[in-house]
Amino acid sequence: MASYGKILSLLRTSSAGYISGQEISNQLHVSRAAVWKQIKVLRELGFEVESKHSQGYRLLSSPDILLAAEIENELNCSLIGRSVVSFPVIDSTNVQARRLADEGALEGTVVVADQQSAGRGRLGRRWESPFGVNLYCSIILRPDIPVQQAPQLTFLSAVAVAETLNEICNLTAEVKWPNDILVNGAKISGLLNEMSAETEQIHFVILGVGINLNMAADQFPRELNYPVTSVLLATEEKVDRLLFLRTFLQRLDACYAELLTQGFAPVRRRWESLCNVINRQVDVDLGAEVLRGTVVGLDPEGALRLQLENGEIKKILAGDVRPVIT
Amino acid sequence: MASYGKILSLLRTSSAGYISGQEISNQLHVSRAAVWKQIKVLRELGFEVESKHSQGYRLLSSPDILLAAEIENELNCSLIGRSVVSFPVIDSTNVQARRLADEGALEGTVVVADQQSAGRGRLGRRWESPFGVNLYCSIILRPDIPVQQAPQLTFLSAVAVAETLNEICNLTAEVKWPNDILVNGAKISGLLNEMSAETEQIHFVILGVGINLNMAADQFPRELNYPVTSVLLATEEKVDRLLFLRTFLQRLDACYAELLTQGFAPVRRRWESLCNVINRQVDVDLGAEVLRGTVVGLDPEGALRLQLENGEIKKILAGDVRPVIT
Repeated sequence: MASYGKILSLLRTSSAGYISGQEISNQLHVSRAAVWKQIKVLRELGFEVESKHSQGYRLLSSPDILLAAEIENELNCSLIGRSVVSFPVIDSTNVQARRLADEGALEGTVVVADQQSAGRGRLGRRWESPFGVNLYCSIILRPDIPVQQAPQLTFLSAVAVAETLNEICNLTAEVKWPNDILVNGAKISGLLNEMSAETEQIHFVILGVGINLNMAADQFPRELNYPVTSVLLATEEKVDRLLFLRTFLQRLDACYAELLTQGFAPVRRRWESLCNVINRQVDVDLGAEVLRGTVVGLDPEGALRLQLENGEIKKILAGDVRPVIT
Repeated sequence: MASYGKILSLLRTSSAGYISGQEISNQLHVSRAAVWKQIKVLRELGFEVESKHSQGYRLLSSPDILLAAEIENELNCSLIGRSVVSFPVIDSTNVQARRLADEGALEGTVVVADQQSAGRGRLGRRWESPFGVNLYCSIILRPDIPVQQAPQLTFLSAVAVAETLNEICNLTAEVKWPNDILVNGAKISGLLNEMSAETEQIHFVILGVGINLNMAADQFPRELNYPVTSVLLATEEKVDRLLFLRTFLQRLDACYAELLTQGFAPVRRRWESLCNVINRQVDVDLGAEVLRGTVVGLDPEGALRLQLENGEIKKILAGDVRPVIT
């Protein structure tokens, strides 16, 4: 971690009073001059740091930005977040993650941005990404699993997002096959997983995650043809983006380790327990036809298992699933 | 097609005698000056074109290169080869195809090279790619099929390669799961298919094809730990690379159209009929364990279906398959 992150952490914990340059220097085992240099970096980043002769430094205010150094601090993951790269603005965290992955970035590298100038959702659609209110992040994975099982990772990130929403924001988030997260039936998060692979080997998978955290009603685009929400709208409370992100990355780290050691079953069960239509009657629109049946779960390739009215189990690889309203 | 390709085609068909500039000009509906300009291009490419006053032009010799304009000429495919890009030398046709695909190249674009300076085989291994003797080509596809079914395209290209070898070179090529082509038990061709996809949509698939055509024994690397061959070694005859490539692309075009309209079944049946171990007892090395069983075919995701001795059918997604010698 860059040392300004450690200094920031000390300033935050002692924000009630002053902390002397000598104490920072002792705790971090760096020179007084190095402390002064990093304080300067923090000020350039928009942190207001007061310095008082004979008392030391005090943090007066922080800009609402996600900094790699702060995210990494106390993250304690085994793999996810080995390297964190943060940007105030970037075209798209997925595109940047792909660039890094193509250049050989480590598995577990996380790309975070406060704003995306060209945020993308599924099927090339735009993903609204205003500054400082939401979470836009992409994680590089290099799993040693067959290409056919790569879709499992979509369910992995869906579980990590939904469980983090439920834990941190006290919500009842549901997952919608294949890659949406809903709160009260409205979309709160979208996942855009991308893969580069050859027949026998996955080069990398990018888990792209957009979560509407503190987005206000007037910040949503008007032309959406489906209901959307944010944590702020659903709970009427703002959520700490840094805390949320760290918790999410920790949960993802644990889920991923579980997937690699125990296979898909645990993730699958957790996903199924969060699924909005599990054991419910649905219509699946396949374009050419609409199938009616009951959702009975996921298969190892991430297909939705649909039990038709004649008892036959149908694997759905693509299609639009709508609960039947009776 | 570039017009020097058409002129070349006229020169080739009348190579016994001369063809006048006026006749070329009439047939191609271009000016005499344009004919002269394209003859100059051909000479720069290494074609020896004699020009005799009052008789016209005659092709004396051709360099052994694959030219986009010649490949496209009389290709008559519906999709594959809409655009052909050829290089005397390139790092890797797959890498170049990926660059083009990322930039939005049309489905069906074909990249061909006479030599690869950094040819790659499966799992990042080197693929020996000397100048002018073999076929190195990559085809960009953008199929509207679920990501889980992308491995079907590996079997598609395997069938097209094996059938072309059998048709043009009168060989009995076999396919080895998942992506090798064998002649007399030795590897004659390797396929390296790469994919870029998101959960619900394939961005593109690159079919990478390397076929040892006119490679002599002393051109193979020494350190290979498996048997290899070429058409030249197997038949003691050289094969016309241009004819081979055109036939292969035409066959691939037909197979791909069949896949998109009729699904995987026809390709699967053709692959199974070419498979070196179909209905045979094999050992499948999974790393952690070795399974013995009988190969009974492919499933829709391209997994090998193995019938164990207790009758159970096991889906093999990855592993090394060896026939049991009894």
